[in-house]
Amino acid sequence: MKRREFLKKTGISAAAVASATIAAPTVWAKEKTYQWKMVTTWPPNLPILQTGAERFAKRVEIATNGRIKIHVFAAGELVPALEVFDAVSSGTVEVGSGAGYYWAGKVPAAQWFSAVPFGFNPQGINSWFYSGGGLELWEETYAPFNLVPRPQGNTGVQMGGWFRKQMNTIDDFKGLKMRIPGLGGKVVAKAGGTVVLLPGGEIFTSLERGVIDATEWVGPLHDLRMGFYQAAKYYYYPGWHEPSTCLEVIFNKKVYDDLPADLKTILDAIAMETNLWSLSEFEASNGAALQELITKHKVELVRFPEELLNKLRVMAEEVLEEEANKDAMSRKVHEAYKTFKKQVGIWGTVADKAYFDLIADKYSLKA
Amino acid sequence: MKRREFLKKTGISAAAVASATIAAPTVWAKEKTYQWKMVTTWPPNLPILQTGAERFAKRVEIATNGRIKIHVFAAGELVPALEVFDAVSSGTVEVGSGAGYYWAGKVPAAQWFSAVPFGFNPQGINSWFYSGGGLELWEETYAPFNLVPRPQGNTGVQMGGWFRKQMNTIDDFKGLKMRIPGLGGKVVAKAGGTVVLLPGGEIFTSLERGVIDATEWVGPLHDLRMGFYQAAKYYYYPGWHEPSTCLEVIFNKKVYDDLPADLKTILDAIAMETNLWSLSEFEASNGAALQELITKHKVELVRFPEELLNKLRVMAEEVLEEEANKDAMSRKVHEAYKTFKKQVGIWGTVADKAYFDLIADKYSLKA
Repeated sequence: MKRREFLKKTGISAAAVASATIAAPTVWAKEKTYQWKMVTTWPPNLPILQTGAERFAKRVEIATNGRIKIHVFAAGELVPALEVFDAVSSGTVEVGSGAGYYWAGKVPAAQWFSAVPFGFNPQGINSWFYSGGGLELWEETYAPFNLVPRPQGNTGVQMGGWFRKQMNTIDDFKGLKMRIPGLGGKVVAKAGGTVVLLPGGEIFTSLERGVIDATEWVGPLHDLRMGFYQAAKYYYYPGWHEPSTCLEVIFNKKVYDDLPADLKTILDAIAMETNLWSLSEFEASNGAALQELITKHKVELVRFPEELLNKLRVMAEEVLEEEANKDAMSRKVHEAYKTFKKQVGIWGTVADKAYFDLIADKYSLKA
Repeated sequence: MKRREFLKKTGISAAAVASATIAAPTVWAKEKTYQWKMVTTWPPNLPILQTGAERFAKRVEIATNGRIKIHVFAAGELVPALEVFDAVSSGTVEVGSGAGYYWAGKVPAAQWFSAVPFGFNPQGINSWFYSGGGLELWEETYAPFNLVPRPQGNTGVQMGGWFRKQMNTIDDFKGLKMRIPGLGGKVVAKAGGTVVLLPGGEIFTSLERGVIDATEWVGPLHDLRMGFYQAAKYYYYPGWHEPSTCLEVIFNKKVYDDLPADLKTILDAIAMETNLWSLSEFEASNGAALQELITKHKVELVRFPEELLNKLRVMAEEVLEEEANKDAMSRKVHEAYKTFKKQVGIWGTVADKAYFDLIADKYSLKA
């Protein structure tokens, strides 16, 4: 019950209540309230990504009993997608939601906190963030930009993309026009491809008309909604370029640092909750969507040939080294990423991979 | 700042503050505080499990600004491990922490919420809980016992256990005396083994003296500390019997239901945060521990033969059907589990398994 309602209902004086309170086992807190704006890089209603940002805001409001209210704006509603970083950094708005690779031009090291080709799987990246020093490095990377980052979601292992022709050898990338962002795009460019950047709304038409030969997007749930199966025949896996794409929530550092410890903890906990929730949602939805693509839309599901993947992996290592040379922070992050990956790699093989080998034969890839 | 401190420091009257407050954008809340006891099934200081329960309590206290204080008691400090369920159910204490299979004798359906042989991996079980209706079924299962459950941790895929002799065929289980609890133990019994239940403190000595031939425990981090490598030569994987063991926090239902929405949300968020934190901790620690077991202690790491695993899987399916026949709730939970597993299975194979196949060759199993 709010104090003013309490006073109204009981009719007793504020002074009497206050003096009674001193002896009673209750806490009277004068609590500041906050009205924040959150801008995102996602289109309105984009499942799990934009709806995840909205879920975060709603849960924070409930958990803080209204002390923090966050009004969420999708890409373009207040600022364009790629201006989210600057809007939060400058304090124009208090919160943002996006992914680190969008800021690669400004902060090369940010790429390691979103998607690394042939990098961690979701369990590995979360372990690095929360138990391997990854989040501290991320904070260090964003601090000069007045930002505090937190993982807010994970797409899981993505699909390799939609191709209008079969990909048999690494040479098939030569001259291939593909929409693929981030470090994965740099690897495709190294393989001889032409990397095309397109807004989400223009990808389908470009693919259908042959302006591009291939595109990656997210995974079955989102790819199905985009209708790519009508424009390209082959659906390749696995998503070597984005094996655990992390979505981020970023707070203006001054705003975050000035909060009392309880509110900071609530924001951190709800961000971590949303991170796990989003991976759970992807896992729950992608199976049925993939089944529909195969069964109803007769999509041809194809695994990239081993030899092609091995060549991409060598190129990915070269790209990462080149990027790591861009500045000291990138080098520091890259080395830490590699070290932790080596540390957990053996365990993933013995535990998770061996278990997958055991259960996977129960699930056929065809209907 | 607390109200009493505020009044003291400013020297103004409570009534004046209250009247100013009505116009100001602040919230005055008369907040009840709670002092709770949490009893766990874990020994004092047991890494990630007991320390995870303590972390949960501490984070809740910070996030609620002291409105909920939880005093944590390890197994035996207030009630014995196996009486945790009853202590929370009866309201003797407000909170408990353990795992569902400990209550199998009382609530057979609880087993599906802890560890299912050949069941979900960690990503799968979390998806079932949070996005596939699993948690709602768990609440339905525990409601008649006045309990509200939440996932609070996950061990990840466990190891298969320590054996004093090699396991080459399913017949090697005949007459084998093994310490293995839960549904996995029922499968070993079906294979002809003798299942032995021992408190944690007696396992090492029993194994060393040959009173038992084999034991499972958790994974490299915990197994290393127990010193099993000094008593058994072969360390088998994968942990077919516990591929995603879920740890639970249980609240007395009356206590939980009477809370305001903000406190409920904070408890739920911190439980989910702790769930992800624990899996991250296991992932971060097990690799180095496994490396130490192999390199320093010359443990022989062996994969169970394929044929043996296939026979265990058939027996596990029989055990699950038998358990599901025990009551209506078990049947309902078993069917829901199977349905969701089928739904996400294809996605795990295409995404996660295919990606593991790609990266695993980078990590050798030997030093």
